[in-house]
Amino acid sequence: MIYFDSDYLEGAHPKVIELLGKTNLEQTVGYGEDPYCEEARGIIRKLCTVSGQPSDPEKMGVHFLIGGTQTNTTVIASILRPHQGVLCCLSGHINVHESGAIESTGHKVLGIAGSDGKISAEEVREAYDEHWNDANHEHMVQPGMVYISNPTEYGTLYSKKELTDLHDTCRELHLPLFLDGARLGYGLMSDANDLTLPDLARLTDVFYIGGTKVGALFGEAVVITDPALDVDFRYIMKQRGGMLAKGRLLGLQFKALLEDGLYFRISKHADGLAIKLRDAFIGAGYQMLIDSPTNQQFPILPDEVIAKLRRNFSFEFWSRIDPTHSAVRFCTSWCTPESSVDALIEAL
Amino acid sequence: MIYFDSDYLEGAHPKVIELLGKTNLEQTVGYGEDPYCEEARGIIRKLCTVSGQPSDPEKMGVHFLIGGTQTNTTVIASILRPHQGVLCCLSGHINVHESGAIESTGHKVLGIAGSDGKISAEEVREAYDEHWNDANHEHMVQPGMVYISNPTEYGTLYSKKELTDLHDTCRELHLPLFLDGARLGYGLMSDANDLTLPDLARLTDVFYIGGTKVGALFGEAVVITDPALDVDFRYIMKQRGGMLAKGRLLGLQFKALLEDGLYFRISKHADGLAIKLRDAFIGAGYQMLIDSPTNQQFPILPDEVIAKLRRNFSFEFWSRIDPTHSAVRFCTSWCTPESSVDALIEAL
Amino acid sequence: MIYFDSDYLEGAHPKVIELLGKTNLEQTVGYGEDPYCEEARGIIRKLCTVSGQPSDPEKMGVHFLIGGTQTNTTVIASILRPHQGVLCCLSGHINVHESGAIESTGHKVLGIAGSDGKISAEEVREAYDEHWNDANHEHMVQPGMVYISNPTEYGTLYSKKELTDLHDTCRELHLPLFLDGARLGYGLMSDANDLTLPDLARLTDVFYIGGTKVGALFGEAVVITDPALDVDFRYIMKQRGGMLAKGRLLGLQFKALLEDGLYFRISKHADGLAIKLRDAFIGAGYQMLIDSPTNQQFPILPDEVIAKLRRNFSFEFWSRIDPTHSAVRFCTSWCTPESSVDALIEAL
Amino acid sequence: MIYFDSDYLEGAHPKVIELLGKTNLEQTVGYGEDPYCEEARGIIRKLCTVSGQPSDPEKMGVHFLIGGTQTNTTVIASILRPHQGVLCCLSGHINVHESGAIESTGHKVLGIAGSDGKISAEEVREAYDEHWNDANHEHMVQPGMVYISNPTEYGTLYSKKELTDLHDTCRELHLPLFLDGARLGYGLMSDANDLTLPDLARLTDVFYIGGTKVGALFGEAVVITDPALDVDFRYIMKQRGGMLAKGRLLGLQFKALLEDGLYFRISKHADGLAIKLRDAFIGAGYQMLIDSPTNQQFPILPDEVIAKLRRNFSFEFWSRIDPTHSAVRFCTSWCTPESSVDALIEAL
Repeated sequence: MIYFDSDYLEGAHPKVIELLGKTNLEQTVGYGEDPYCEEARGIIRKLCTVSGQPSDPEKMGVHFLIGGTQTNTTVIASILRPHQGVLCCLSGHINVHESGAIESTGHKVLGIAGSDGKISAEEVREAYDEHWNDANHEHMVQPGMVYISNPTEYGTLYSKKELTDLHDTCRELHLPLFLDGARLGYGLMSDANDLTLPDLARLTDVFYIGGTKVGALFGEAVVITDPALDVDFRYIMKQRGGMLAKGRLLGLQFKALLEDGLYFRISKHADGLAIKLRDAFIGAGYQMLIDSPTNQQFPILPDEVIAKLRRNFSFEFWSRIDPTHSAVRFCTSWCTPESSVDALIEAL
Repeated sequence: MIYFDSDYLEGAHPKVIELLGKTNLEQTVGYGEDPYCEEARGIIRKLCTVSGQPSDPEKMGVHFLIGGTQTNTTVIASILRPHQGVLCCLSGHINVHESGAIESTGHKVLGIAGSDGKISAEEVREAYDEHWNDANHEHMVQPGMVYISNPTEYGTLYSKKELTDLHDTCRELHLPLFLDGARLGYGLMSDANDLTLPDLARLTDVFYIGGTKVGALFGEAVVITDPALDVDFRYIMKQRGGMLAKGRLLGLQFKALLEDGLYFRISKHADGLAIKLRDAFIGAGYQMLIDSPTNQQFPILPDEVIAKLRRNFSFEFWSRIDPTHSAVRFCTSWCTPESSVDALIEAL
Repeated sequence: MIYFDSDYLEGAHPKVIELLGKTNLEQTVGYGEDPYCEEARGIIRKLCTVSGQPSDPEKMGVHFLIGGTQTNTTVIASILRPHQGVLCCLSGHINVHESGAIESTGHKVLGIAGSDGKISAEEVREAYDEHWNDANHEHMVQPGMVYISNPTEYGTLYSKKELTDLHDTCRELHLPLFLDGARLGYGLMSDANDLTLPDLARLTDVFYIGGTKVGALFGEAVVITDPALDVDFRYIMKQRGGMLAKGRLLGLQFKALLEDGLYFRISKHADGLAIKLRDAFIGAGYQMLIDSPTNQQFPILPDEVIAKLRRNFSFEFWSRIDPTHSAVRFCTSWCTPESSVDALIEAL
Repeated sequence: MIYFDSDYLEGAHPKVIELLGKTNLEQTVGYGEDPYCEEARGIIRKLCTVSGQPSDPEKMGVHFLIGGTQTNTTVIASILRPHQGVLCCLSGHINVHESGAIESTGHKVLGIAGSDGKISAEEVREAYDEHWNDANHEHMVQPGMVYISNPTEYGTLYSKKELTDLHDTCRELHLPLFLDGARLGYGLMSDANDLTLPDLARLTDVFYIGGTKVGALFGEAVVITDPALDVDFRYIMKQRGGMLAKGRLLGLQFKALLEDGLYFRISKHADGLAIKLRDAFIGAGYQMLIDSPTNQQFPILPDEVIAKLRRNFSFEFWSRIDPTHSAVRFCTSWCTPESSVDALIEAL
């Protein structure tokens, strides 16, 4: 059986494992204050800064958390006041697949229809205006920030133009913009992408570089570019159970992935295989539910084809299209062998 | 200026004021443990019981709270476990107009499209099945109870058949059913209604008899018919700020309204005027946004007609229909004089 | 039976009842935006401002809530960030008698031993320093504000010197200072008091003028003197169930009580009777648990004396002192007749 | 520099690292539903069951979480109703060092003085009675469960007699008993211990086997022995950010540690070194703050001795004893070399 169910089926890139092994018996202080975390913070600050730019990367808060739900919850809870909610695409992870984690911190997720998993600056402005223009706005949840994911849950990407518009609108409306980068590597290395890490640092108030799905055992590196939002963030990490005792495990993993570009190379690998797969589906005459340029692909297949493929391949049901067709999801990852993709294409 | 903006523009029915005045200097213990609250509880238990029925009304918990948001929050927080949410029509008060009160207790409001402010047993079952059939259901908010309002925010009513179906489905799915009766009097006395208080007590797990909008200065009488849900309810009332120090003020008001049917007479008055108004709008050739048989009416009017009416009448904008027409809301209440309605009809 | 159990045994001062009756059928908008609330806000702003002072009373936020627990919860939840707690005397109402209302908003009450229900500037500074000097402070709840009550739960009062010290320390440490004035009238009119309303407005960031226990049916008037803390306070009122639909009921009551000094006269009455009672206890050879200059008195009595008094008088058990003596609490109020106190003294 | 600061300074036992490496590229499903977690659950169920006993270990819920704060929060939030609090020694981890995590879920930590970090059955009963005997108990936080740690934050242990008494009292009072076993191995292997894993399973409703401090990179294995408390626990894990995507990392670690007794051998090692250290301190004429039979030792040392030791050794300041003496903490762990302890003894 070959699995395309998700991008977190395996452990970590061998280089990560090797570094964890090599440093295993060293003694360091805990909770992210060790030299490896400091080193990883430095690497990330550098990657997020354009050289020659007068900004001060030292003011960029960098924190390491363990997983996506924890990261989203901690960031959002740290930003909102009690009466505020977070604007988010209806399909957003925080709105659907986190068991009400955001609500558990007291905040409503304010759904925006969006399109292909993305929301536009115009939609944000509309939601904002709709709130403030309502005579009863004090009886409603006030939009307090914006959450987006990139790539989205549908594998789609924000263009630099779209993100710039979102940024400008959010800035104007005083809404912090938070970008969930659980699959950021696969976004940055897509042929369709025109955003860089310094762009993200410039165009969002908080974003994270996902490790769990891109070569790490676990871990998300949060970058807080607005110093006001960084105040006391570590308390809230601790309160939300997100401060790992042996914090260096996170620093070490991001060091291994980011110090020489490994993170980007393995992301490119996954994207390439996903596109190869997409082209094969299209070549075989199937339609895609969504035009995704990243490592998740959503072909619409006849149910009997799905049944046949399932004999040798595992993948996720996504949604029913009509009585005889369903959309399914195939994920490639940093460690999918090309031979697995070839076997699938062969089976098609 | 004559106001049709809402059903809480005035104080209380004179009988309520009179009783508050007459008992003003009596000394009683606080927090709802006084004889007036006890008397009101007895009246309510009796009204909710069919004589000759073998049920035990003493097991019915009756509690007095101050307002609707407080009541909804307290009841829902008292029932749900942390990972559960409340199923509710998208237009439900708790989903729209309570500033995120439910979310502030940690729970998601799980929206159901519904129709004219109502949700059906089938929709509840679908939402339930959709949750439990999803392979990722542990990553999603679990439906833990059902909230409905009757009359709804659109003035519409559940029929006995509809409520029975909801009850049966909720019972089967182990979802407590909670009915928000902020405008219950106007529902019970509508010509279109076929539900009684004993029906409500039998078909819901918790409901309330709204006082604020039906003749009281303030106050909602919560009836908990499932003894398991009544355990420690008073703690949660206190915790949510809903335990009035001079609790007798609530008991006295419900006594005044309910001991001799005043609550029902004044509700019928409001309904009658609302129907008179509705018939006048229809007679004048206008359409109604919603077919409401209760004290809220939603005519669709040309904007210039709205502008003209506004010179002498105040009412609420509801929604834009097209570039030249809007739906507006007219509320009658327990104390609307017939002359006000006649003046409005005259102006039409 | 004559009751000295609490200061909320009766309804409201007749002038309050009269005004509610007189305005009963007027139509006003809801939620505290009516002319009566506006008028009451004006009266309160004026009472809290020293004439000739260059401050801008219009910037003072004044809001009306229904009861103490609700008010404390709403104010505290509106101020703290998620990782912060509220410093409070161990005997403080929020720490003991609000069923965990503060914790229900996600915040720890950080107890300070204090003395006779009061905490000192030094104790606040110590708690603050203890936090920040601890190497593990990020693993602990950060002090985020200070709560005091005046009079305290023991009837004691802060002197102007003590409150000034607290204010200065809180200002220096960036801790908003919140004063619970549920019994404020009885404090302000005590012979032992040297604080004025303008002092309170100057020396706290938020305080409230309690109505429930001082002549109103219910109601607390919150004064927010730091405009930054006033931002969006009404949303949080609504979210916490504290925005009364017929908000004018609160405005009317505070107008009745405050427009001509009634609030202060009736408070003085209660204080006078309490002191008369205290002197009688002391005269009869009993000790007081606490030296209270306000309307609550805590004599230590032999159990057999308590038993005898209970035949005709009702009062609260406070604490056991030794096998044969207990401290009990007698409250006078705005409407205690002097004859009741005389009867008690006679019985002694 | 040799570090005795904590028991989480290093990575994991080499066998753990080896197993993670060996299985690294296997594909498994996520979120703890993989074969390794299943295997680890089986091992734990077996370890917690006395053979021949008629109990049904399959009913024992076993869940893997990442760290202590997360585990404590998740367990406690899953058990309590909104108005309930958790009884806990004042020195308990949840009361002091979790940044208000419990309060962030809406619950008060109800402090009990205890002694040397432990609370007794009598103290639990007193706190319970004090609540229910108070006439105002509905205005107070209701005790809803009991939290203890073993070893405690002071390294002390509950005897089987003490834990049996606690269990019996908790059972009688319907208070679930939760035991934080972050350092459980060091407790079980202490010479002073008379408790076994089956004892813990029998005498508590929930406990956990700590991995983070005893040989794992991270991880706590929660054992829920009351099936009623296991219902939907996984939802709450997910909601609190505690469901690791690559859940097998937890299963693998506990398999490595528990399948052949490694966990116990390395714990014994640490305890032995700690006792050797303790004896050396006592032999050198110093007093211990606490008589700890486990891996944490708290000698009281003259400040100049501390200063001298700090040149070559790192350890934690605990508390000031007098102007010239302080208590400090030395931790040994599963991987402390005997030579480190010898060097310290030598330096003494």
